[in-house]
Amino acid sequence: MPQPQPVLIAGEWRPSRAAGTFEPTNPRTRQATGETYPVSGPEEVTEAVEAAAAASEALQESYPAGAAAFLEAFAGRIEARSGEIVAMAEAETGLPAAPRLAEIELPRTTGQLRQAAASARARSWSLPTIDTGSGIRSMYRALEGGVAVFGPNNFPLAFNSVSGGDFAAAVGAGCPVIAKANSSHPGTTRLLAEEARAAVGEAGLPEATVQLIYRTDHEVGKSLVSHAKIGATGYTGSRSAGLALKAAADAAGKPIYLELSSINPVYVLPGAIRERGAEIAEEFQTSCLMGTGQFCTNPGIVVLLAGDEAEGFIARSAAGFDKAPVGTLLAAGVESGMEASVRTLQAAGAELVTGGTTGGGTGYSYSNTLLRTTAERFLDDPEALQTEAFGNESLFVVAGDVDEAAEVARRLEGNLTGCIYSDTGGSDDDAYERIAPALRRRVGRLLNDKMPTGVAVVPSMNHGGPYPATGHPGFTAVGIPASMLRFAMLCCYDEVRPHRLPVELRDENPGGVWRLIDGDWTQADA
Amino acid sequence: MPQPQPVLIAGEWRPSRAAGTFEPTNPRTRQATGETYPVSGPEEVTEAVEAAAAASEALQESYPAGAAAFLEAFAGRIEARSGEIVAMAEAETGLPAAPRLAEIELPRTTGQLRQAAASARARSWSLPTIDTGSGIRSMYRALEGGVAVFGPNNFPLAFNSVSGGDFAAAVGAGCPVIAKANSSHPGTTRLLAEEARAAVGEAGLPEATVQLIYRTDHEVGKSLVSHAKIGATGYTGSRSAGLALKAAADAAGKPIYLELSSINPVYVLPGAIRERGAEIAEEFQTSCLMGTGQFCTNPGIVVLLAGDEAEGFIARSAAGFDKAPVGTLLAAGVESGMEASVRTLQAAGAELVTGGTTGGGTGYSYSNTLLRTTAERFLDDPEALQTEAFGNESLFVVAGDVDEAAEVARRLEGNLTGCIYSDTGGSDDDAYERIAPALRRRVGRLLNDKMPTGVAVVPSMNHGGPYPATGHPGFTAVGIPASMLRFAMLCCYDEVRPHRLPVELRDENPGGVWRLIDGDWTQADA
Repeated sequence: MPQPQPVLIAGEWRPSRAAGTFEPTNPRTRQATGETYPVSGPEEVTEAVEAAAAASEALQESYPAGAAAFLEAFAGRIEARSGEIVAMAEAETGLPAAPRLAEIELPRTTGQLRQAAASARARSWSLPTIDTGSGIRSMYRALEGGVAVFGPNNFPLAFNSVSGGDFAAAVGAGCPVIAKANSSHPGTTRLLAEEARAAVGEAGLPEATVQLIYRTDHEVGKSLVSHAKIGATGYTGSRSAGLALKAAADAAGKPIYLELSSINPVYVLPGAIRERGAEIAEEFQTSCLMGTGQFCTNPGIVVLLAGDEAEGFIARSAAGFDKAPVGTLLAAGVESGMEASVRTLQAAGAELVTGGTTGGGTGYSYSNTLLRTTAERFLDDPEALQTEAFGNESLFVVAGDVDEAAEVARRLEGNLTGCIYSDTGGSDDDAYERIAPALRRRVGRLLNDKMPTGVAVVPSMNHGGPYPATGHPGFTAVGIPASMLRFAMLCCYDEVRPHRLPVELRDENPGGVWRLIDGDWTQADA
Repeated sequence: MPQPQPVLIAGEWRPSRAAGTFEPTNPRTRQATGETYPVSGPEEVTEAVEAAAAASEALQESYPAGAAAFLEAFAGRIEARSGEIVAMAEAETGLPAAPRLAEIELPRTTGQLRQAAASARARSWSLPTIDTGSGIRSMYRALEGGVAVFGPNNFPLAFNSVSGGDFAAAVGAGCPVIAKANSSHPGTTRLLAEEARAAVGEAGLPEATVQLIYRTDHEVGKSLVSHAKIGATGYTGSRSAGLALKAAADAAGKPIYLELSSINPVYVLPGAIRERGAEIAEEFQTSCLMGTGQFCTNPGIVVLLAGDEAEGFIARSAAGFDKAPVGTLLAAGVESGMEASVRTLQAAGAELVTGGTTGGGTGYSYSNTLLRTTAERFLDDPEALQTEAFGNESLFVVAGDVDEAAEVARRLEGNLTGCIYSDTGGSDDDAYERIAPALRRRVGRLLNDKMPTGVAVVPSMNHGGPYPATGHPGFTAVGIPASMLRFAMLCCYDEVRPHRLPVELRDENPGGVWRLIDGDWTQADA
């Protein structure tokens, strides 16, 4: 067996005292990529947590200049090595090098890192609050300890544990990161971590600002998120693994931010279908099949009102799904997960409209699949009929009337997004008014006339939502600076002498930081 | 046995289908107050949760005008019935009617309710965020479902589950409340709930906006906080009961905000003692003994640097504690808790300086107590030596040098507050610089030259801190509007048609709501 790749602990690339090894697979060929990676045991994890905790205190001293310089240097280094990184990501995930990886995901990744740098420098993310009469001032500051980041399989760059949204938010807030690679793209993660390590050196940050392990067993993973010296955890991935980590973190009183699962309901009202059904069907197909449907915001359930419009929309979508090429799935487990989920949906009463078979594309794949059921059946067994099929699949739910359609919204689990398509003439307005209030409360982001895929990195974005889409409905994983607040604590200063205050809270405000002073936001001095 | 008092469910005062009863006690006389209260079973709790969930949707329709009108009407009604409420609170808690209850706590209570009303009306608490280029807008809005509030024993008005800080924050954010009375003052809670119920009617809110039960067993309490239709929970009380509720809420993915325990470390540096030791000792004594020490921010541990200054400070404090009158404790359990905690501290090596005996005051009481230990011993068994003695007690920790004093700070559990007294001439500055960074990260509020008791209700207040002082270091239980964010979810609107947006997110902003538009805070239109 070849020597496994080294881990990055306390600034050093070193051989893992591996508790085991694993070999990633190229999903297009189903063959091993030829590299071997270690499974880390408990000592290695403890060492990383201790090193991060020590770095955490030191990192405050150069904040924000040091963290910002690192983020920018790292972004530049990713660009300089983009060819190699994209090639590795393509080999490990089967996602196309272009446009997806090189032209969309990589620029998004470096953009997020630079946004986090800019937010750190601007300092306004910390929401400094001053009440001049009371002598009390407060702001958000980095949590104590490192942040453990578990990245998902579906974004090897933009949500990678060592370069993605959680990473950028944690470092931007001033926290070291302990990255746990996703097992489906360890090589991509290694290349990114090499650049991160080099950027840490260039920026003069504590060496343990960025650390990397590749995999742990469940118990060791739990020991990481619940360690007395960890600050918090960001996790994006499967619900079962995420909930096991959540239980461990919760019991230790450690914040854990989760993005677990979402089927992203889309309501298409009959007036909208009459007005522009073909266009909407095409938007739906594009949204559901791009990236072979492997997006957190994939439209996994489409609610229609019974009638000719619904039947026409279903038939048109089925024809489109049949004709569309079948994409490659990220891993064997995604392929078998599709099969299991489709069978679960069928067992709960959903009928196959098209697809429903393993294979049909290059490597790991599953036919483009549509199922249908009635709202009545959905309301009988909402849990089973909300089974997430992670991939190129969606379920139509046909409601007898608007009340039933609204009741479906009320019985939805928490989701990242919810969409309503309505006509522009007003014939759908009554239905909209009755469905939207219920749907809005079950989702983090409500859309009109637009599919849920595509998550803009803007301050107003909410990539979050009620449980079990996430672990807490008040936080977003995308959108800077809001996502940085997850890795911060509220720090209040009561009659602290002026020269001892952090610069954000002093009377003078030469940097023009936005501050809430006596109830008004201002960039002026206090 | 007399008929137990009715519960308030779905707008109706009705006999409880009681699973049991209990009788509150007057702590000054140790006699029953003569009233009997029910212990609610699971059906009653389920009914309350369902009624609150229904009210939650309706409450949105009149928000914020309805919620604000209610909060103001309720505040007025509390004032109109203040004599009776204060007398009941005095009988149930032993706290003096004046000045404490009538002149300090009651005005604070009505002030909080009115601040929450004003914040709801101003709408700025919801942090509306608009990015004009992207079509994406977001804000915080009330959680779906009711909020369960468990109030503590030590503030029968200002933290009462039906009138206190969590109540004001939840209703201010737009959530119905299911109040669980503290068993030590159910009569006070009943009177307040009567006024709340009447104010709900006056304001025309859904009848289930305020509901009240008095007590449950542990299992029923867990079923309340983990119910599928509950929105969140606010809990202030003992760590053991709080952690049991936390485990249940966490497992169900329900937010729970806890205020559990805090020993509020105070560092008094030698220069400060040389400069004004007598004054500081008096501040310490006042802070530690007022309300018989039964404050969440009671200074329970005082760190000193070994030397004549420390010995003088300890001797002076001991003399003061000996001379000071011994107050009444809130309940038999507080008295026995003091005894148990002092014994635990002694078993861990703390030596008694003064006090340490049950009794000495009127009714439930415990002698004014001081203990001491060394930092070396503290660092050997930090867990036992951080045992909270809830009452008129404090522990001196004498450190051999500044490094040891800073190490004590690093080993502290999360606390609500941390104080450092230093001299004005600068001789303590080096010690301050070495201790403060560590202490700041272990507390929610850092104070200079000031004792921790006294929690101003201002926007910059943080009455929170790292676990186990609370369940999450990013939230505060006191301070409006920040405390309202605990009971809200982040709601994002993506290309939602303009007339369907909530008023906070429309282009026009006639109310002058503070909004973050394209990165700048403004009260202008978008």
